[in-house]
Amino acid sequence: MSPRIVALGGGHGLYATLSAARRLTPHVTAIVTVADDGGSSGRLRNELDVVPPGDLRMALAALASDSPHGRLWATIIQHRFGGSGALAGHPIGNLMLAGLNEVLADPVAALDELGRVLGVKGRVLPMCPVGLSIEADVVGLESDPRVSRAIRGQVAIATTVGKVRRVRLLPSDPPATPQAIDAIMNADLVVLGPGSWFTSVIPHVLVPQLAAALQATTARRALVLNLVAEPGETAGFSVERHIHVLAQHAPGFTVHDIIVDSARVTGDRDREQLRRTATIIGADVEFADVSRPGTPLHDPARLAAALDGVRKRGSTTAVAQPTVPTPTVNGPRGDDPWR
Amino acid sequence: MSPRIVALGGGHGLYATLSAARRLTPHVTAIVTVADDGGSSGRLRNELDVVPPGDLRMALAALASDSPHGRLWATIIQHRFGGSGALAGHPIGNLMLAGLNEVLADPVAALDELGRVLGVKGRVLPMCPVGLSIEADVVGLESDPRVSRAIRGQVAIATTVGKVRRVRLLPSDPPATPQAIDAIMNADLVVLGPGSWFTSVIPHVLVPQLAAALQATTARRALVLNLVAEPGETAGFSVERHIHVLAQHAPGFTVHDIIVDSARVTGDRDREQLRRTATIIGADVEFADVSRPGTPLHDPARLAAALDGVRKRGSTTAVAQPTVPTPTVNGPRGDDPWR
Repeated sequence: MSPRIVALGGGHGLYATLSAARRLTPHVTAIVTVADDGGSSGRLRNELDVVPPGDLRMALAALASDSPHGRLWATIIQHRFGGSGALAGHPIGNLMLAGLNEVLADPVAALDELGRVLGVKGRVLPMCPVGLSIEADVVGLESDPRVSRAIRGQVAIATTVGKVRRVRLLPSDPPATPQAIDAIMNADLVVLGPGSWFTSVIPHVLVPQLAAALQATTARRALVLNLVAEPGETAGFSVERHIHVLAQHAPGFTVHDIIVDSARVTGDRDREQLRRTATIIGADVEFADVSRPGTPLHDPARLAAALDGVRKRGSTTAVAQPTVPTPTVNGPRGDDPWR
Repeated sequence: MSPRIVALGGGHGLYATLSAARRLTPHVTAIVTVADDGGSSGRLRNELDVVPPGDLRMALAALASDSPHGRLWATIIQHRFGGSGALAGHPIGNLMLAGLNEVLADPVAALDELGRVLGVKGRVLPMCPVGLSIEADVVGLESDPRVSRAIRGQVAIATTVGKVRRVRLLPSDPPATPQAIDAIMNADLVVLGPGSWFTSVIPHVLVPQLAAALQATTARRALVLNLVAEPGETAGFSVERHIHVLAQHAPGFTVHDIIVDSARVTGDRDREQLRRTATIIGADVEFADVSRPGTPLHDPARLAAALDGVRKRGSTTAVAQPTVPTPTVNGPRGDDPWR
């Protein structure tokens, strides 16, 4: 029987995971961040009351059927209007999702319907049925480097010249999409990341119902780290620091496996240190060749092989308890251990 | 075998013919005017280089499959964005057609693809593969009622307070869509009208290749008259005058049948006069109950019955030659016989 794989993330990182997962099974569910406020999605949020469609559209394209019609519609929904008028820059798929949502008054029904046109075998779901905002505490913007300022909005956070310390969702206790909870609970493998760490990956564990489902599911759980530290929100972040900030935002959150590109961490001592760090989220580290040689991109076939490897270890293995108490999100600021 | 029916027109009139024709056969081809410059279509023409999509979209909706998905997508493409922003008022289907046309660079391929999503059994074609303009000679706009002024644009013509005397296409010799020519030549029944007479019906006979195909086809040819004189471009027009202006714009153009609602012309003398007028385009007059009682709308089932009646008379009947020489379009102005 084909495994059921759930991938959580947003943007290009999620596209990579979905491109890998679809090689393993037709039962792929994408759970997508809904906090984008830039570009076409930002314009549509301002104009219409819609869940930002950009990342959802990309996930649909990643899961489109391999048939000629599926490939054509994947191209169509990704195509951005040209010219310099009111439509310029809007991908057709964003407008279709916004329109479907107006007609059907349900973002999940809208995604299912557009997914049907694309021949998507799996499903694409928003992590929440309403659009959210992200707010970040950022240091390094004032002359005193210890002073923290709150920055609001995905674009502002992703492009800040300061250092992001932590992020929050607004509203802070949003409802999860019920179908996303169901998918997580019924999965064989759940994959978080890669992607923009503060704005596409961490938001998932900040939705209380999603975080609870991620801990309650019997699925194998894997975290896929980024191949390179992104300029902007995670500029200069080490591999360990990615794990630390995730743990800080989601006390008690654990995964079975952390998938790290072999080329990212090469020395024995560095690998040993990473293995120790991984224990704070209860994880083993899987070093695997998952990048496309010569690029900072995940290779779908190689990532698929790595995902299949950890998936086969089964969903009954108990995750080790975290060895180090993780700092709480609401704890005092300025004394984070990874600073 | 199901007959092949071709319907030429635009807007709500064409929607009515298509709603009738689809009851008779799955082989319906809509050939649609492409001169609209108002509303969403006008905005899209100004912003992008597209064939105005509005009338094409309506024709697709008229031919959408009766399946749940077909009905849903008919609703979706007809839905106009709300709000007060850049998208407000654009039907989703117009944006989809504009986008498909950008990706496929072919208006017919774009229509076929959207038609596939709607489960359209027949086909919707633009009369020309490029957008056109309409120019009209209009009197009654100056203090001297004999002075004619040229008015340009479908909206301006449809809403003029003057009297439209004749219309021209710009450019004056546009190419017909090749697939439209093929459909006419292979049809069993060709139906022109009803609809806005100067801006949706007459434009078809002003495209030289379409006019030639309409005369060369072995199909039965029917003209469906409007139920009421439209305010604006044909305000106060008699039934006869509709026939006269059509004949004046298309010298030598003939049809087998003119379908007239029984309630429109009731007296024996009036009917006899109409029959005489019909001979100028070689036609017999078919009086039939085609309206929805108490409305100025065609009833799909009744119109279907009338169309089926004339279709069954066969396509081999020779059309009578016009009995009266029709005035030429380029003749002297101001002495039109119906003035």
